[in-house]
Amino acid sequence: MRIVIDLMGADLGILPIVEGVAKALGTQVFEPVLVGDATKAKALISKDLASKVEIIDCPDYIRMEEQATDALKRKETSIFVGMDILKNGADALVSAGHSGATMGLATLKLGRIKGVSRPALCTLMPSVGQRASILLDVGANTDCKPEYLLDFAIMGYEYARSVLGYENASVGLLSNGEEDSKGSLATKEAFKLISQYPLFHREPNNANASAFKGNVEGNDIFVNAVDVVVCDGFVGNVVLKTTEGVASAISSVFRNEVKNGLGAKLGALLLKGAFSLIRQKTDYAEYGGAPLLGVNKTVIISHGKSNARAIECAIYQAIKAKESNVCEKMALAFSHKPLDEEASHES
Amino acid sequence: MRIVIDLMGADLGILPIVEGVAKALGTQVFEPVLVGDATKAKALISKDLASKVEIIDCPDYIRMEEQATDALKRKETSIFVGMDILKNGADALVSAGHSGATMGLATLKLGRIKGVSRPALCTLMPSVGQRASILLDVGANTDCKPEYLLDFAIMGYEYARSVLGYENASVGLLSNGEEDSKGSLATKEAFKLISQYPLFHREPNNANASAFKGNVEGNDIFVNAVDVVVCDGFVGNVVLKTTEGVASAISSVFRNEVKNGLGAKLGALLLKGAFSLIRQKTDYAEYGGAPLLGVNKTVIISHGKSNARAIECAIYQAIKAKESNVCEKMALAFSHKPLDEEASHES
Repeated sequence: MRIVIDLMGADLGILPIVEGVAKALGTQVFEPVLVGDATKAKALISKDLASKVEIIDCPDYIRMEEQATDALKRKETSIFVGMDILKNGADALVSAGHSGATMGLATLKLGRIKGVSRPALCTLMPSVGQRASILLDVGANTDCKPEYLLDFAIMGYEYARSVLGYENASVGLLSNGEEDSKGSLATKEAFKLISQYPLFHREPNNANASAFKGNVEGNDIFVNAVDVVVCDGFVGNVVLKTTEGVASAISSVFRNEVKNGLGAKLGALLLKGAFSLIRQKTDYAEYGGAPLLGVNKTVIISHGKSNARAIECAIYQAIKAKESNVCEKMALAFSHKPLDEEASHES
Repeated sequence: MRIVIDLMGADLGILPIVEGVAKALGTQVFEPVLVGDATKAKALISKDLASKVEIIDCPDYIRMEEQATDALKRKETSIFVGMDILKNGADALVSAGHSGATMGLATLKLGRIKGVSRPALCTLMPSVGQRASILLDVGANTDCKPEYLLDFAIMGYEYARSVLGYENASVGLLSNGEEDSKGSLATKEAFKLISQYPLFHREPNNANASAFKGNVEGNDIFVNAVDVVVCDGFVGNVVLKTTEGVASAISSVFRNEVKNGLGAKLGALLLKGAFSLIRQKTDYAEYGGAPLLGVNKTVIISHGKSNARAIECAIYQAIKAKESNVCEKMALAFSHKPLDEEASHES
């Protein structure tokens, strides 16, 4: 399995990426293709590692402050070159660089799975439930038509089943109340579309039989009330940032308390099990990256601040996605969709 | 000061409401007008309290499962009668009943402040910053035009200054990134409207001089990055529920740990300062209720599950709002707004 790994544009530079590749090679068999500044990379790579990786020299990259659309013209950048390699025979790509650039190039070069109106970014959310819920879209699509939300439901459902191996995976639509009647104009319309889609077929008098559980609320995410939570990219971003904000505010209250006294220090020590569980559940590194669903090959978008562990997990995620044939299964899930005039018009 | 208090439709019945009124009367001077089931209320009221309150008998009320629009026709309900009393001479109203019914009747009977396109519900958010940030809208308006978001910015700003007494109050627009270019179609347009509004007048080369600080993200809410966070009611509800979900998930991890051992119990005891600070900051009862901004008199919408303390605080909030003349100040803040054709058309 050939996995393209973008070395450029991450906040912490090349080192954690190279370290993540080395760690992943310690447990899995795959052929890494590193795209980026070869001179810098070679200086950081051990002799042993050098024999296991291919390095493609392309030191240029899209800076964070640049527009995603610039990426389509900048043919010398690592992500442009990397996406071409993926398209022409590699199996997956991992990048912690400019996420808009990666999404744009992936859509352009790999193409969307037939029937998909918009690719979406999905992420695993911390949960005290049986399994982690996945949330999508978390940033690829700010304004969403109801049809896009239907597509996110289909993609999230297939990802949960195929890649995460969730049995009896369930889907919910994020709304401002759990009653069927709640929602914005767009989510109310999406509710109908999802209910009617053959994969979810949901009748009002037999709603339990469907994988689509209807509307869910923000708090449902953290108890795994459903496995897949569907929303537009604007709302998804707000959920992610709010989650981060609450967790970090609570943790700062504890830190202040511990700073102020020996008793509190001891208390924190005695509760270290709980603290470490919370840290583990909220550590994005353990979840790898955010897969971009709906394009024809596996693309994992890692956090700009990814450490070696995050890159390592993103590579495992890429391997799992490829091995599970999720793109093929997704194409099948979309085959129920009539390719109507509007959809083909939008292509 | 006459304050109408709705006794009906709250999840915990009449008792906590009566208790809340009694508590508030212990510290503040006001004339409570209790609307609701007089027989039940009298059975719960002490002789001393009975001498200080007026009771209007109207046992009917809007059930939670009923539509808000039903309230406009049901003239015998406590909220219909109460809103009439407010309109005809009382100073404020507090209700823990059907919130949609209260909002609908308030808008219809009290009328909107001139220039306000839609009233909005606002709430104080827990924060580790200097002050609590207020978030609006949190549920009154699901789909919002850019103009509504401008109105929320103006109303939130006036509330922060007049009622909360925030000096140099600042306003932010909740978005999916802090850069000026981020946002949905509606928030991008609202960004322009707020920037150009005389109250906020914000020039790109001198943004610091304006009270409008531009886009903020979900995590900014909990560090008081700005005092007023503006969003539509759909997103506001998702933020509230997500906040609740994260806090409750974290607390359940601690509870499980404490259940499992004596050491963890001791640990929790040693950290009780931090736990109680978090509890206090996330206890909605301490914040009272959610003021409905943009109508011509003071209306406080309390949580359906309000305990006596929450009702007590909601009454204090009502007194403070009335004393600060916030409605008059808001009318002044809106006087900069040209009453264009579209706005008057929508009235």
